[in-house]
Amino acid sequence: MALEDVLAHLRSRHDEVLEELIEFAAIPSVGADPARAPRMREAARWVAGRLAAAGPLSARTVETEGQPVVYGEWLGAPGRPTVLVYGHYDVQPEDPVEKWESPPFEPALRDGRLYARGVSDDKGPMLIPIEVARSFFETDGALPVNVKFMFEGEEEVGSPSLDAFIRGHEALLSADAVLSADGAMWRPDEPSLVLGSRGVAALEFTLTGAAKDLHSGRHGGGIANPLHAMAELVASLHDPDGRVAVAGFYDRVRDLPPAEREAIRAMPFDEAAYLAELGAPAAVGEAGYSTLERQWIRPTLEVNGMWGGYQGPGGKTVIPAAAHAKLTCRLVHDQDPDEIVERVARHLESHRPAGVRLTVRPGAGRAGAARIEPDHFVVRAARRALSDVYGVEPLLVRVGSTVPISELFERHMGLRTLFFSFSTADEDFHAPNEFFRVRRLHEGLEAWARLWERLAETRAGEPAPAS
Amino acid sequence: MALEDVLAHLRSRHDEVLEELIEFAAIPSVGADPARAPRMREAARWVAGRLAAAGPLSARTVETEGQPVVYGEWLGAPGRPTVLVYGHYDVQPEDPVEKWESPPFEPALRDGRLYARGVSDDKGPMLIPIEVARSFFETDGALPVNVKFMFEGEEEVGSPSLDAFIRGHEALLSADAVLSADGAMWRPDEPSLVLGSRGVAALEFTLTGAAKDLHSGRHGGGIANPLHAMAELVASLHDPDGRVAVAGFYDRVRDLPPAEREAIRAMPFDEAAYLAELGAPAAVGEAGYSTLERQWIRPTLEVNGMWGGYQGPGGKTVIPAAAHAKLTCRLVHDQDPDEIVERVARHLESHRPAGVRLTVRPGAGRAGAARIEPDHFVVRAARRALSDVYGVEPLLVRVGSTVPISELFERHMGLRTLFFSFSTADEDFHAPNEFFRVRRLHEGLEAWARLWERLAETRAGEPAPAS
Repeated sequence: MALEDVLAHLRSRHDEVLEELIEFAAIPSVGADPARAPRMREAARWVAGRLAAAGPLSARTVETEGQPVVYGEWLGAPGRPTVLVYGHYDVQPEDPVEKWESPPFEPALRDGRLYARGVSDDKGPMLIPIEVARSFFETDGALPVNVKFMFEGEEEVGSPSLDAFIRGHEALLSADAVLSADGAMWRPDEPSLVLGSRGVAALEFTLTGAAKDLHSGRHGGGIANPLHAMAELVASLHDPDGRVAVAGFYDRVRDLPPAEREAIRAMPFDEAAYLAELGAPAAVGEAGYSTLERQWIRPTLEVNGMWGGYQGPGGKTVIPAAAHAKLTCRLVHDQDPDEIVERVARHLESHRPAGVRLTVRPGAGRAGAARIEPDHFVVRAARRALSDVYGVEPLLVRVGSTVPISELFERHMGLRTLFFSFSTADEDFHAPNEFFRVRRLHEGLEAWARLWERLAETRAGEPAPAS
Repeated sequence: MALEDVLAHLRSRHDEVLEELIEFAAIPSVGADPARAPRMREAARWVAGRLAAAGPLSARTVETEGQPVVYGEWLGAPGRPTVLVYGHYDVQPEDPVEKWESPPFEPALRDGRLYARGVSDDKGPMLIPIEVARSFFETDGALPVNVKFMFEGEEEVGSPSLDAFIRGHEALLSADAVLSADGAMWRPDEPSLVLGSRGVAALEFTLTGAAKDLHSGRHGGGIANPLHAMAELVASLHDPDGRVAVAGFYDRVRDLPPAEREAIRAMPFDEAAYLAELGAPAAVGEAGYSTLERQWIRPTLEVNGMWGGYQGPGGKTVIPAAAHAKLTCRLVHDQDPDEIVERVARHLESHRPAGVRLTVRPGAGRAGAARIEPDHFVVRAARRALSDVYGVEPLLVRVGSTVPISELFERHMGLRTLFFSFSTADEDFHAPNEFFRVRRLHEGLEAWARLWERLAETRAGEPAPAS
């Protein structure tokens, strides 16, 4: 009954863990703000301190080109699997701060929710496995499996140092799988596990006509208007069926195994309720696919920003010198971000309207799609752990967004990543009034303890199924 | 030799006139800036003072809903034509002020040019006929023709009160033709007269999808992106031949008389030099027409601003809730601004892509096209006056931009407007470092005196040729 003892110990510490989260969330670890650099180091020290307090984890901070990584490990379970626990201690900027009901770095409890910037993404979820380790150590003196902890401080700015850090520490980080405390469950009331996430490729481009803005009365009709050219060029990126019209875009997209596609079809999803929640008039997308398929397993090209000319009140009769657009593609399967950027750039070049010049700049974000097989041993263990906590089988879902770390671990170390986060997609984690449900903190503590225990039933080195 | 006396008198006053212009241009009469309301009234008083000083003109300011109109008249030449001289004492805002080489309201002489906001548009040109009247009065005690002066203070904000002012003062303003001191000649070295200007119709529209910005990773592919819809909709406004694709857009466009079209073809115009001056890579426009025809006698639809989503540095993976565009059409012949706005709005409605809502708002600027016949008596007189000053025949040109006042005088009073301005299109009148060539001030004084003298040879009430 060792697990029951650990679970009881965790329950007895619910208030203490909440107090710790409140302390953690009060540190304004906004990595994007250079003025907060000292608070970033404070947050890293705070995490290292919690790891050190949890047990014999050799907690330390490791310098990178950017923010330090906090690392700890316990490898006292030979013959059992080794899992690498990932999370991040940096948070999104709090802007617009005037829209917060309570100050973003003064955590406030209201209606069973803790409100503060970063509390759901990712401070609450990443604190959970640390506290679970502590309860195992204090109860059993050991963990059920070998655990390595790695917490980065650059997730919200695109993890620029993580690639080099992983490549430089492959032995240190070697494991059988990654357990990410980052990510988010689909809905607060149904446990779910993520089997796949889409990759991303970004670029921006500018069309220029005349050297400066021209009077549209004097010159209009005779000189190319970069806004017209932009509209034509952006419109050319999709065909009338909603498919991306870029040559070769779908070359590396494979069909999903019929069983996995069937599972998505069978997923409980109320499209009318979804549209009503978003306030959107209709579902729109690639012909031949359902809304969930379009968002989970099909690649996209989305313009995220497009602008040029006069945007103020009233009018200004101008032919602007330039028009701009930023776009991102979401990738699936083996689509390669660099190749996609190149193909989109080639499309833009070959469809450039007359009378304008084109400049294309690759964007910063790029990552391949990531997936984990439904019968991977960590998925099997996680399904059982979640069933034990919630009394229902977790939904096996996918996410349309990108979690670059899973692709990094896959590419450099051949590791699959299981997302095992207890934040929920509705917790406004990139918006004002971010919150984390206290109930989910408690559920997460129990679930992580059960997950490790279930993983201990798996033999070390059990291979992932062929992908 | 009365005219020679007047011209000599004017020459003797060159420095005095320049000093007056410097004083006038130092008044920051920016009508768009509510904080400058007292300076607007100061400018109106200054103009009324100059009119009063010029001679027996019954100078006065007349209140309107907005800025006052300055009025004066001398009707002592029975049997001779009556001309209504138009100009405006308000100026464009001086922003961006940091780009001025000398402060915008501290007129500065450099290299034969006077630099100040409003000096070319329209303070220099409108001061000229006042000073010419003064020299006629001081030399002859009379003017060669009957002259009414009307200077408004709202031209730079679209003359919102002018329509009601004209309708309310038809008897006061009755005349045989309007002589506008506003406008601009095509080039500084070649005299020109404007035979036509295009009208304008404006509208703006918004496409909305979801109620707020969505994460383009999570939702992308399943929800309409208003930026894609905007691109598609804007692209639908033109056909591949560069024609406006709005149904009925060309219904009221008539062919120009062959002789007038031939005159445009024969116009000296170096397209390569024009493109080089603008820094534009190519001339682009409606198939079957030359660049000058596209800009002078063909209607257009131009998007002046288009925007939505993220415009900052780096990227933000967002499907914006809305996309916006502002557009203006330039109109020719009998195209009606209200009808064109309605037809464009109908096109937008009928081409609205799925999944977005459309809101259309008519814009403020609307005016029909204006023209004056090449053999109109004021054109004939002006051609002779300009030949006398410059020793060459003036070019008979058109402008692509809109001069709403000529359409107003035409619509309400049946009056043709001759533009007789001595500013030049290159004098940066809506940009930093606006200037007016001092030489053109002198040429303008001589030309206005000669024009009035030539008009005196015309009998009063000579009908305009049938249009």
